Amino acid sequence: MHHELPHAVSWQSNELYLLDQTQLPQTTTIEKMVTGDDVWQAIYQLKVRGAPAIGVAAAYGICLAMKPFLNLALAEFLNELQRQSDYLDSSRPTAVNLKWALDRMVRFAQQAVEKSAVQNAQNLYDLMVRQAQQIHQEDQQLCTLIGEYGHSLIQPGMGVLTHCNAGSLATTGIGTATAPMYIAHEKDIPFRVYADETRPLLQGSRLTSWELQQSGIDVTLITDNMAASLMSQGLIDLVIVGSDRVAANGDIANKIGTLSVAINAQFFGIPFYVAFPSTTVDLNTAEGKDIVIEEREAHEVTQVGSQITAPTNIPVRNPAFDVTPAHLITGFITEKGILKPPFNQALLQLCQ
Amino acid sequence: MHHELPHAVSWQSNELYLLDQTQLPQTTTIEKMVTGDDVWQAIYQLKVRGAPAIGVAAAYGICLAMKPFLNLALAEFLNELQRQSDYLDSSRPTAVNLKWALDRMVRFAQQAVEKSAVQNAQNLYDLMVRQAQQIHQEDQQLCTLIGEYGHSLIQPGMGVLTHCNAGSLATTGIGTATAPMYIAHEKDIPFRVYADETRPLLQGSRLTSWELQQSGIDVTLITDNMAASLMSQGLIDLVIVGSDRVAANGDIANKIGTLSVAINAQFFGIPFYVAFPSTTVDLNTAEGKDIVIEEREAHEVTQVGSQITAPTNIPVRNPAFDVTPAHLITGFITEKGILKPPFNQALLQLCQ
Repeated sequence: MHHELPHAVSWQSNELYLLDQTQLPQTTTIEKMVTGDDVWQAIYQLKVRGAPAIGVAAAYGICLAMKPFLNLALAEFLNELQRQSDYLDSSRPTAVNLKWALDRMVRFAQQAVEKSAVQNAQNLYDLMVRQAQQIHQEDQQLCTLIGEYGHSLIQPGMGVLTHCNAGSLATTGIGTATAPMYIAHEKDIPFRVYADETRPLLQGSRLTSWELQQSGIDVTLITDNMAASLMSQGLIDLVIVGSDRVAANGDIANKIGTLSVAINAQFFGIPFYVAFPSTTVDLNTAEGKDIVIEEREAHEVTQVGSQITAPTNIPVRNPAFDVTPAHLITGFITEKGILKPPFNQALLQLCQ
Repeated sequence: MHHELPHAVSWQSNELYLLDQTQLPQTTTIEKMVTGDDVWQAIYQLKVRGAPAIGVAAAYGICLAMKPFLNLALAEFLNELQRQSDYLDSSRPTAVNLKWALDRMVRFAQQAVEKSAVQNAQNLYDLMVRQAQQIHQEDQQLCTLIGEYGHSLIQPGMGVLTHCNAGSLATTGIGTATAPMYIAHEKDIPFRVYADETRPLLQGSRLTSWELQQSGIDVTLITDNMAASLMSQGLIDLVIVGSDRVAANGDIANKIGTLSVAINAQFFGIPFYVAFPSTTVDLNTAEGKDIVIEEREAHEVTQVGSQITAPTNIPVRNPAFDVTPAHLITGFITEKGILKPPFNQALLQLCQ
């Protein structure tokens, strides 16, 4: 579908390759990961980012981490597996999918030993690689299903706004927010995407506009503060964004700036959709105000790369996410279909 | 009031000095202007920017431009004056105050000659310098009056959001949007300003946060897309912005991003004020949709300084301004008081 685009994560001939996203869009570097520590560093340094992509990288990463221990007895191998898993999990403590993928890999290995399904560590390692490939495939399928359900929202001639990168680069498939775009493009629907640059880390200009451009989708880059102006001119017909966490009542946390887009969309009567797989829903979080928002370092706001853009010692706020209340959201695009309000019931059903 | 702050424009001992704002906030360079062409270059290169400051710089600049012609007869001097004025006016054709100030200087000189008020070119030059100083003083007074009328909006403990730089650096006084802040600060009212960085040219981070910081005002820098999040947390109690043109019906054009701030402010029930002198009102423009919006070059969006932040050849939109409809505006802060809706009547009275 977008074969021109390098994969965020790929596993070929028993080797793990990650696209170094910190160098995008200037340089496309595919790095071969040899050790578990290579993967730890890649996650820590944001070479691979986006919760689903991190999860898949970690599933393969724990396999790489165990390669030096194939001569161990199975019980010792499982002990080492837990240690290596804990270490990999420390690379980015806030990414939910990281822990989810590692826990799944460890549980899988433990059950394989309990059920006497393997003779030795080499057998177990081979099964673990297949399990990581299973996680990888599932992630791709979730993206594709989101795209299949969501693409009909994109009608010929539409302008579609997105914010940040909930794209192919954040997953191992066709993304979440971008999935409907890739499917619509595959079906030759003509439309134009407007990508918010997404200050401060510019994931919209560095990643989203790059991956859509690479795939031949008509994409135009704007600064975040231009969205309302374009809406006022009738250039935006639809908004699709991703989410980092969905609360039980349908409030969503997503990259800083999403709330402003949602408010502007409501003001201009433009549908505002959020695309995510069911694994992003956190039913233990009752509502948006319960979501703790990460505050990041000031230098992200006061400089762009090496270019300093603000006075020395200026006080800065830098929340990484904001919360968009459910009442501003037209619908959720999920792997099981498009959900409409009331969201609390729809989300309960989605997670059953 | 803010004596720590370098003046955008100053005239001392018959010499013109401009603060090079392109180097802010990294370097504070005051440049001495010797020729009319120096001033043309300074305006063209945005070393001096902001319509009021440009007007004052041009008034002095036309004096400098005429210095080589003090040996001419008065009639020849006036002919040369018109030529030099046309040349200076070409430095930035869209800045209304530039032409306004130059026309006023030429008319003043012509009338002085017609009334036989001067004997020779040296006499006329001396009067022209005094006229430029008059324009300079008037600009300062307009700012101060805006501040005197507007400061009572700022109550102790408030968070005040502003966008772009309608500050001291855009005028020769205490700014327009910032004037109420400087006066409130002088009166020891405690409050905090949140400054939108204002992509793409970052006037908020480079200029507004710098001048407020220099003046000892409590200022916090945010990216444009954070404003809604801060509003949702109750941190913003008041918005004050400037304007580049006010239409007869009260619609205003201002720096791109202003519309989004106004929509967000309305959503959260936060008062949204626009500060400007009566000279910014254009009664010949019936409403906002009649204002032509300047589209600027793509590189402003795709790079910050030398740092490239977007893919090569990515299509970009870069409107420099947007239009905020009158119904989103709580009031206008002017040199004759705070105007409330209906704005069409209030603006007619203001301009009488």
